[in-house]
Amino acid sequence: MKLVTVGTVAFDNIETPFGKAEKVVGGAATYISLAASYFVKEQGIVSVVGDDFPKKTMDELRDRGVNLDGLEVLQGKESFFWSGRYHYDMNARDTLETRLNVLMDLDPKLSDAYKEAKYVMLGNLDPGIQAKVLDQVEAPALVALDTMNFWMDSALAKLKEVIARVDILVINDSEARQLSGEHSLVKAAHRILSMGPRYLVVKKGEHGALLFDKDRVFFAPAMPLDEVVDPTGAGDTFAGGFIGFLARSGDHGFDNLKRAIITGSAMASFCCEKFGVERLMDLTQEEIDQRIQQFVELVDFDIELV
Amino acid sequence: MKLVTVGTVAFDNIETPFGKAEKVVGGAATYISLAASYFVKEQGIVSVVGDDFPKKTMDELRDRGVNLDGLEVLQGKESFFWSGRYHYDMNARDTLETRLNVLMDLDPKLSDAYKEAKYVMLGNLDPGIQAKVLDQVEAPALVALDTMNFWMDSALAKLKEVIARVDILVINDSEARQLSGEHSLVKAAHRILSMGPRYLVVKKGEHGALLFDKDRVFFAPAMPLDEVVDPTGAGDTFAGGFIGFLARSGDHGFDNLKRAIITGSAMASFCCEKFGVERLMDLTQEEIDQRIQQFVELVDFDIELV
Repeated sequence: MKLVTVGTVAFDNIETPFGKAEKVVGGAATYISLAASYFVKEQGIVSVVGDDFPKKTMDELRDRGVNLDGLEVLQGKESFFWSGRYHYDMNARDTLETRLNVLMDLDPKLSDAYKEAKYVMLGNLDPGIQAKVLDQVEAPALVALDTMNFWMDSALAKLKEVIARVDILVINDSEARQLSGEHSLVKAAHRILSMGPRYLVVKKGEHGALLFDKDRVFFAPAMPLDEVVDPTGAGDTFAGGFIGFLARSGDHGFDNLKRAIITGSAMASFCCEKFGVERLMDLTQEEIDQRIQQFVELVDFDIELV
Repeated sequence: MKLVTVGTVAFDNIETPFGKAEKVVGGAATYISLAASYFVKEQGIVSVVGDDFPKKTMDELRDRGVNLDGLEVLQGKESFFWSGRYHYDMNARDTLETRLNVLMDLDPKLSDAYKEAKYVMLGNLDPGIQAKVLDQVEAPALVALDTMNFWMDSALAKLKEVIARVDILVINDSEARQLSGEHSLVKAAHRILSMGPRYLVVKKGEHGALLFDKDRVFFAPAMPLDEVVDPTGAGDTFAGGFIGFLARSGDHGFDNLKRAIITGSAMASFCCEKFGVERLMDLTQEEIDQRIQQFVELVDFDIELV
């Protein structure tokens, strides 16, 4: 197995100023693995669903090369459910309801094939579960972790333990500020890099993303879109494109991380064009290449210093 | 005269989480002309101050090649005064007090030398006054206009008349949304470009700036800084570096506007490093070149499409 992702596989209710969608398939691991599927053929998901989760979606994931041996299906139980509402400023959202359901029973046990994974994406989830997955992977080449303010509030010590063990931390700007206690993202980055990770990716939604290591910083814009229909899963899709690109190339240097961030940003821009995972289901390589080319042109300039 | 700028020349009280400064020199035209002075040697200001305005500052402006024949000094009156407070999120600020003072008496009459200006920067001010300046310039090669939500609320018809006459509109993201009635910045840009200007620059503070023409879009990041000490005047400094760069090069094509935006962003990043205009007083060409080189590196990536 090239890539193993742990994260939620779920149902979402989504309201935006442009419409609403009920009980659509969502969850961090779903978005991550769909985005990564355009780059990696051998990947698996570690998660849990109830028997309400559609077989059709599972077949679609398998069709895209996503191994579901690590996806436990609990009979007589319901899948994780999240309901949220976006306003015109889609960088913020209100969570209306969260039903953990089967998530309470998630106790990951990796198969031998999963244990051999070289790339590990620890999607946003209880840091205790992230740690349990990481414990079982025998010799990962690269581990990335996404998390959120909820775990900083409720399980900071455990979260810091896991963060110390990963290569790349992927969080948003307000989370970087909360985790570091610094308002300046530059200072926040240096504080966080001293906690263990070699790289920090700071997602800023429609304002792009920053990549830091101890000495360097890179900025990737978000693509200005005519219409953001639904940003749900954009951050996970970013992470999926990012880790998928790295897994395909096998190069973990700063220059290649820049490419991975541009690729993740391209995938995230597609995600926002339709509700839920819909747009990630039917992308072509040509569309992805065209979007990446648009990113090249978006920031391209030449200037001669006098 | 190469460049003429109309705008306020004023005193500011500034409070930030990092400190406060009282009665420091400020005003849109001050920041614009100081930033432009690194690129243009023949420029003049159209504005008005009271007899409380320091002669030392006027001498410093003249030393930098800023002609003050258009700066009226009204005896026995006080200069425009603004007082504001920033919080940790420096993209937003509270205006604590505004005293128009001499600004009520501003009725610009341009000298012959000013009337021959090729570049005109209409800084944020009553659109009626912006129009009066523009009426008097005989054959401008390029006119840029900055404005704010206050004029959209209070003088929209007059503002739209002036906007229809300029080449470049420079506003921030919330102002672009208000002026166009569109939330998507892409849609907002197309709506605004249909009002007359050939180019639209959307400033997003710490999130960078976008340049639009009818067919193209360019994104320039803001430089991630260790510490933003005081963002007052950063937008005006951006405009000054932008128009100054264009005036020096004489090229108004899209590719050169990109360079002008990077240059404006570099100047704005310096502005934030100290209170008020302080940092703009002692910059060296070498510092500016180094900062522009940092912008080149900040967004530089190469990606091969597979």
